[in-house]
Amino acid sequence: MPERLGPARAVPLFDKIALIGLGLIGSSIAHVARRQNLAREVAGFDSDGDVRRRARELRLGAIAESTQDAVAGADLVVLCVPVGAMGDAARDVAPHLKAGAILCDVGSVKNGVVSAVAPHVPEGVHFIPAHPVAGTEYSGPEAGFATLFLQRWCILTPPDGADENAVAKLTTFWETAGSHVEIMNAAHHDLVLAITSHVPHLIAYNIVGTAADLEEVTQSEVIKFSAGGFRDFTRVAASDPTMWRDVFLHNKDAVLEMLGRFNEDLSALQRMIRWGDGDGLFELFSRTRAIRRGIIAEGQETAAPDFGRHIGEENGPGERN
Amino acid sequence: MPERLGPARAVPLFDKIALIGLGLIGSSIAHVARRQNLAREVAGFDSDGDVRRRARELRLGAIAESTQDAVAGADLVVLCVPVGAMGDAARDVAPHLKAGAILCDVGSVKNGVVSAVAPHVPEGVHFIPAHPVAGTEYSGPEAGFATLFLQRWCILTPPDGADENAVAKLTTFWETAGSHVEIMNAAHHDLVLAITSHVPHLIAYNIVGTAADLEEVTQSEVIKFSAGGFRDFTRVAASDPTMWRDVFLHNKDAVLEMLGRFNEDLSALQRMIRWGDGDGLFELFSRTRAIRRGIIAEGQETAAPDFGRHIGEENGPGERN
Repeated sequence: MPERLGPARAVPLFDKIALIGLGLIGSSIAHVARRQNLAREVAGFDSDGDVRRRARELRLGAIAESTQDAVAGADLVVLCVPVGAMGDAARDVAPHLKAGAILCDVGSVKNGVVSAVAPHVPEGVHFIPAHPVAGTEYSGPEAGFATLFLQRWCILTPPDGADENAVAKLTTFWETAGSHVEIMNAAHHDLVLAITSHVPHLIAYNIVGTAADLEEVTQSEVIKFSAGGFRDFTRVAASDPTMWRDVFLHNKDAVLEMLGRFNEDLSALQRMIRWGDGDGLFELFSRTRAIRRGIIAEGQETAAPDFGRHIGEENGPGERN
Repeated sequence: MPERLGPARAVPLFDKIALIGLGLIGSSIAHVARRQNLAREVAGFDSDGDVRRRARELRLGAIAESTQDAVAGADLVVLCVPVGAMGDAARDVAPHLKAGAILCDVGSVKNGVVSAVAPHVPEGVHFIPAHPVAGTEYSGPEAGFATLFLQRWCILTPPDGADENAVAKLTTFWETAGSHVEIMNAAHHDLVLAITSHVPHLIAYNIVGTAADLEEVTQSEVIKFSAGGFRDFTRVAASDPTMWRDVFLHNKDAVLEMLGRFNEDLSALQRMIRWGDGDGLFELFSRTRAIRRGIIAEGQETAAPDFGRHIGEENGPGERN
């Protein structure tokens, strides 16, 4: 699999792009847009003045003091705010959008974002919702980097009758940023992401919370002995609280459906443990290995043991045959 | 934190050690014992003839064709078999143990192992149960490496009245292998590990199983879009099925207790989502970040974003300030 971004474009794809929201995703787009020559000009705005100041220090682009200045003349406007703030962001940018511009978002929920954004989109502006399936547990403008989207999927959910040229141009944008692009409808997106992302985050948050509340086991013991499996959940559970609150509030139905299935399956496992059904446990534990192999084969993961935490150490797995 | 093993011992700590079971843990002990001069002679045995053959090819030590030959004259015998096989392994080695020898295990459950092993231990042999809290999702003799135990905790659960010299010597053994040693009683160990390791593995296995069984979302979609959080669970759920079946069967009470708490907490979260309690979600999601910081500060984890998966890539976080 390619480990690096492809060559930068000889000619910018857009004349001006505007990024509304300069957290992990917005700042990463700024980095990769410059690196890949995706736009002649990268403008940005964040409603938080401190974030704007830091974004300027980080030289993320032309950081404006108003939404209006940021989006003025932009061919592509990307809303990089939490899902719950998308509607307001769309309302703010709408009056200033250029005719023919593409409006895009990066929300982890699509139906909810479409409902909130679409009513504000002016005639002649192409709204193409997008979800780059990429992230880290860090947030803020300092957290961004140019290869965040490399080898990650970006899902576009264009509405029926969306402008084909706009979809094609946005596809080129994300592909040049290193992503694979997939197109699906918003409702299916929300179901797929509920199981691959939203419910995993929910149960990670949940078990870390459970561990924090125990009386018989101290927090210091939980921290000390986390290498047995728990620490992987803490990374997921360290993700941005605002973003995730909004995801659960706006993808409620799909999350509750998937959570219901998770609970049914967990009850069955609990019963196997209570009644000592070793064969049932073994059967499930063997079956789940196959999915891991599929993920590694797809290039969505490293095969290095323990996430490669030991790589580079003497005799470590990084040096094995 | 030290990134490498300390200097090797000038004089071997033991004359001969015998490793019964040559999977990930047994083979890693063989590597580190040689690297750190922990024993003049490292002997090994595995009940699987193919594993013995591969262990010889890997030069893991003097691989015997019988338990008797492996443990003959050994000062330290380490049982590195799944928890459910500890009783049989103890029965097999018992008649051949040298007077004054230390018998140790590496099981992830302690009360269950003590019940299975202790009845076989001859007078004059010091049985000191141990649990190195370290591992990867790989198994077999090829999976071992010398730094597996580096910066990891090793929990000893010596019974009341255990020989102090034996405990001290075993502590030195694990410390020289790179571990921090903690002493606690077996019952407390089982409770701590239920929350930090056993329940996390169970819910990881469970959600991967849930995802595999969906009708509305294909397995290929689950694999493609796993980067949103799910893939971290698949690593945990790729761990050795035999080992984990035995853990759940032998730490039933503590696992069921912790699972009960997890379920209560998850029901509360589910209710918050259903009723749109954004403040409740935000509060929990903020609280869990603190535990992550504690784990990184303790040196049990890398602070690199996304487990450092992007490290070394151009503009990646490995090169950030």
